[in-house]
Amino acid sequence: MKNPMQADFAPKELAPQINAHFNGKFEVELKYRLTDREAFWARLSAKSPEVMLEDNLEHDCYFDSPTASLAAEHKSLCIREMLPSGIMLWIVKGPEKDRCEAVNITDANKAKSMLRTLGYQCVLEIKKRRSVYFLGEFHLTLDWLEGLGDFAELAIMTNDEAKLPIYEAQLLALAAELGLEESQREFLSYRQLQMAIQG
Amino acid sequence: MKNPMQADFAPKELAPQINAHFNGKFEVELKYRLTDREAFWARLSAKSPEVMLEDNLEHDCYFDSPTASLAAEHKSLCIREMLPSGIMLWIVKGPEKDRCEAVNITDANKAKSMLRTLGYQCVLEIKKRRSVYFLGEFHLTLDWLEGLGDFAELAIMTNDEAKLPIYEAQLLALAAELGLEESQREFLSYRQLQMAIQG
Repeated sequence: MKNPMQADFAPKELAPQINAHFNGKFEVELKYRLTDREAFWARLSAKSPEVMLEDNLEHDCYFDSPTASLAAEHKSLCIREMLPSGIMLWIVKGPEKDRCEAVNITDANKAKSMLRTLGYQCVLEIKKRRSVYFLGEFHLTLDWLEGLGDFAELAIMTNDEAKLPIYEAQLLALAAELGLEESQREFLSYRQLQMAIQG
Repeated sequence: MKNPMQADFAPKELAPQINAHFNGKFEVELKYRLTDREAFWARLSAKSPEVMLEDNLEHDCYFDSPTASLAAEHKSLCIREMLPSGIMLWIVKGPEKDRCEAVNITDANKAKSMLRTLGYQCVLEIKKRRSVYFLGEFHLTLDWLEGLGDFAELAIMTNDEAKLPIYEAQLLALAAELGLEESQREFLSYRQLQMAIQG
């Protein structure tokens, strides 16, 4: 069975890293608001991170039933299109906070049509500019969202639920090394933040 | 946007044919029970069909909600794994009889897990041995299903709903050339036939 996050349309040389980093049923993720993107970048680049992708445009369409039953069950259903990599993903998160599963798909428009046939509708679109770096076994995501600003996410995926607290402690230590403070932590998802400014 | 049925894991030389033949939102499909597979094969091979694949094993898992709401709405949701080609598909059919949409996916087990997270459960599994041939702009599928026997399906996919009756007439003519008689027509889906013998 092929790896779910295997990026068929990403540069071939990235495939092993992508497989190693995005293989897991659970994701530990710490998100921070960046008050000074330049200063954060200086600290990050001093660690010589491996570049997975830089300045990729991501277009997410979140789907839910007309009664918002997925949101009520703490689940999310999303079709993501990435440019220029051309990667397209079908992503399901929840109901547990750390649970995230995704498969590559070959046609985002077709997948959206299929979800509409199944009775879902697009309830939210989010567009962001994303860069992803590898730092050892962790990955770091640097995002800019229109209307929301700059964010850094430190994360790791795993199939071993028992390791989640260990990884969280390691990610907190890494965040401190990168100058990120607890006051910058953001506990809401981009989806929740976007709905807050839209509402 | 890439073609939905583009077979990333099929032999490269097949890609153009697959794209040309499986590009469409609607499918006109005539299904016949074969009383004599050998005799049918003699007529078919006399037409020198182009082989897309032969003796591929297909494992379909049909999903529905616990209340069977998809079946009630004349929709079906299926994850298909094909061997040895390795092609994996997420397929949604209905509610219209001729409507079929599919995208290639990179991990069938992950997709099934995602569907379970969304609240669906696997309600039926069908395993069949399938060969697919091209005859001009049409494709012909020769199937053997355990417990159900041999079938031939003549079909074409299109985005143009207006062409459906024209294609149906052409497919009926092709069936007659292949010695298939109206008495052999099967109007139930494999799913319905399988549920009938299981029930």
